[in-house]
Amino acid sequence: MLNPQIVNRLRSIVGEKYYRDDMESLVSHSYDGTPMLQALPDGVIYPDSTQQVADIMKVLSEAQIPLVTRGSGSNLCGGTVPIQGGVVMVMHRMNRIIEVDLENLTATVQTGLITAEFTAHIESLGLFYPPDPSSMRISTIGGNIAECSGGLRGLKYGTTKDYVIGLEAVMVNGSILRTGGKLMKDVAGYDLTKLLVGSEGTLAVITEATLKLIPPPKAKKTMLAMFRDLYGAARTVSNIIESKIIPATLEFLDNPTIQVVDDFAKLGLPRDMEAILLIEQDGDPETVERDIERIREICILEKADRIEVAANREEAEKLLTARRSAFTALARLRPTTILEDATVPRSKIADMVLRINEIATKHRVTIATFGHAGDGNLHPTATTDARDKEEIHRVELAFEEIFEAAIELGGTITGEHGVGIVKAPYLEWKVGAAGMEVMRGIKAVFDPHNILNPSKMFAKETKKRVVIQHG
Amino acid sequence: MLNPQIVNRLRSIVGEKYYRDDMESLVSHSYDGTPMLQALPDGVIYPDSTQQVADIMKVLSEAQIPLVTRGSGSNLCGGTVPIQGGVVMVMHRMNRIIEVDLENLTATVQTGLITAEFTAHIESLGLFYPPDPSSMRISTIGGNIAECSGGLRGLKYGTTKDYVIGLEAVMVNGSILRTGGKLMKDVAGYDLTKLLVGSEGTLAVITEATLKLIPPPKAKKTMLAMFRDLYGAARTVSNIIESKIIPATLEFLDNPTIQVVDDFAKLGLPRDMEAILLIEQDGDPETVERDIERIREICILEKADRIEVAANREEAEKLLTARRSAFTALARLRPTTILEDATVPRSKIADMVLRINEIATKHRVTIATFGHAGDGNLHPTATTDARDKEEIHRVELAFEEIFEAAIELGGTITGEHGVGIVKAPYLEWKVGAAGMEVMRGIKAVFDPHNILNPSKMFAKETKKRVVIQHG
Repeated sequence: MLNPQIVNRLRSIVGEKYYRDDMESLVSHSYDGTPMLQALPDGVIYPDSTQQVADIMKVLSEAQIPLVTRGSGSNLCGGTVPIQGGVVMVMHRMNRIIEVDLENLTATVQTGLITAEFTAHIESLGLFYPPDPSSMRISTIGGNIAECSGGLRGLKYGTTKDYVIGLEAVMVNGSILRTGGKLMKDVAGYDLTKLLVGSEGTLAVITEATLKLIPPPKAKKTMLAMFRDLYGAARTVSNIIESKIIPATLEFLDNPTIQVVDDFAKLGLPRDMEAILLIEQDGDPETVERDIERIREICILEKADRIEVAANREEAEKLLTARRSAFTALARLRPTTILEDATVPRSKIADMVLRINEIATKHRVTIATFGHAGDGNLHPTATTDARDKEEIHRVELAFEEIFEAAIELGGTITGEHGVGIVKAPYLEWKVGAAGMEVMRGIKAVFDPHNILNPSKMFAKETKKRVVIQHG
Repeated sequence: MLNPQIVNRLRSIVGEKYYRDDMESLVSHSYDGTPMLQALPDGVIYPDSTQQVADIMKVLSEAQIPLVTRGSGSNLCGGTVPIQGGVVMVMHRMNRIIEVDLENLTATVQTGLITAEFTAHIESLGLFYPPDPSSMRISTIGGNIAECSGGLRGLKYGTTKDYVIGLEAVMVNGSILRTGGKLMKDVAGYDLTKLLVGSEGTLAVITEATLKLIPPPKAKKTMLAMFRDLYGAARTVSNIIESKIIPATLEFLDNPTIQVVDDFAKLGLPRDMEAILLIEQDGDPETVERDIERIREICILEKADRIEVAANREEAEKLLTARRSAFTALARLRPTTILEDATVPRSKIADMVLRINEIATKHRVTIATFGHAGDGNLHPTATTDARDKEEIHRVELAFEEIFEAAIELGGTITGEHGVGIVKAPYLEWKVGAAGMEVMRGIKAVFDPHNILNPSKMFAKETKKRVVIQHG
């Protein structure tokens, strides 16, 4: 519990009902989308304006009370678990679309806005905001910015970072930082906008964002291609790109995922396939037709066993179901589902999937893999049971080896989910000692007393790298 | 001159002939593309490998000798003038294309590589690296990265930053930092890649870069549209974008520029026009045809006086000459040419051009304006004489008011040329006190003793903001 004087000051900023410390509020903000992590905050606060955030920040800074800023807490890295207690600041009341500027193709929004509400509004104006994390129906723009969320369209359109061109953020001392603007080019000093995107709430509280919009594609086409040979699927991915086609979506399901998805969604998928690719192209109608035809030829060349091209949006939605239901289907199998996102250069996807399978067998754990093949961003997903300590230990060992394998193949420990608590002990594997030193230095510049989302990104100890026996 | 022991150590790293301190070498590295700035270094060094850079860095760090890293010195912000003496490190020997990876669509290069040599090689492989700063025939990839260079294709394709996905950099203590990789997605920690892009040699020495490549457009079409009414031209720009067309190029010349260009290149341009737009679209042939036709309709709607669409590449080259020769034509007029790059939201271009003209008249200086209309990135260019102190003073006052006007209109002091020495006194106008504090903090994390390109980006004193009398 916080000192009552502090609580009074916080209540006087936001009003009585917007600071809560009843057990229900504390418990419901003690966890996020990440399994097996929980910690009670001391209080939960709901600001309504940037000024309130600044005033709150001053109070917390003065008393050195930790602050965890959160949207809907849908992240998968423990990024919003208040591991050191303190105050959880929920941004949902700051959910206004401040402006959509049609001349400059920008939108300025408060960061508590739900992503899907934003994209629906943007689409109603005939425009397009591409980032589409799976969580978008509940996640907030601020959460997407904090984690630099990706999604199914990353390959062609990039991720959240590519659309954030200006920010308003409250610094730990309560001052307000404004970066960028409605500007397609701005080289006035270091790029603080891109530094804040993906900073996971550890540097400042992001209160407003100016986002770049683009014209929507005029047409879209969807297809599935199924392969008995994993390398055939992987070669198809590389071949498409080498043929100078960048599909809007290029997703992958491995055999364990196919089986589970088919059990769940009864799609009549061929259960003996080693891989399914879900491919979408969008753009001008002629381009889409031509690209999809060329992709079909490549799939045939690489011995796809079955190819289905959707004739219309309804059929497309059916094909998309296979990919969309992957997580839900896997989550039904066992009490605990742990979704990771090791990422490799796209040319290494098949190698990575085989390594994952090898590692899963070695540690006797069940791991199914699906994900964004075009980006090399895979989601190996373990189905397990948090109550079985021994099995969980084996799952952890397996994921450690998976991170190591990703790094060995020129990849990274996280492509779109963030570091948070879960991957903090492995960050140095990717960024090295020099990277850690610089990142810790940057953290200290923004937050010298370590009160902004403490314990995230930076672990007390880096895990020793495992020596993998493989081959 | 440096202490002879230091010189010996430097010579033992690179070999006798690659450290020079004869007057010719010193003088030829005492200036860059920026007028009216010169300072002699103590020595010039030409490393051949990352390891040599690291070894040099250790020697200079130990003795706290300033280091200015440079490519060809084509920047326009005084970014490579060795204002505090020390060593200029020329990267030209580190010019290897290490790898072009066709499966992952990436290229890895040493940073001393000339940009145009790189793009020629990439194009010979049937691929596309879009950043095209005007300096590209002499500038280096490393210089482009240090300044986050833009170019004519920025509107549709973005700038250098959008194509840098991995870096190798030597830190001030000689350790080697590796960021990113051949990865389209990577959220492992703060985005140090984007932080180093545009850092103007003040944070680390960038030795290698992994660059994203894309498939080239299949077709391209070029047109000129000429307007008697400046607002007609400006509305055309906004109208094109609002019609959901993002042209590859959307360039602007004002009346003074048109006159000078026509004197120089004898293109038969109508000299009474207030503005010319140069517009290019690329992509699939059907899309290009459709977009150019729609753009033509918009130009007619906005009362363009004359529209020329190139029938083939030869005609296109002729139309492009008008824009390409702008700087050269202006540079012939008077002994000194000062090119600025104040940038505003694209909806504010006409307002900004009128403000520039008003300011030029007030201070009795000659300023012609051209630039990237689609980006709102204008290049107001003063033709003057560095020997005329009184006139130069008036030019400086005029540019100060131009920066102030850009900020007032929601813009920035520099869109693509960088801060360097020239704009350092104005940086706070754009980024505010909070921004300056954070940027100084970041600088200190990377370079605690301020030996990497000292006096750049951070001025001793911020200029007082001018109060503009206008309207």
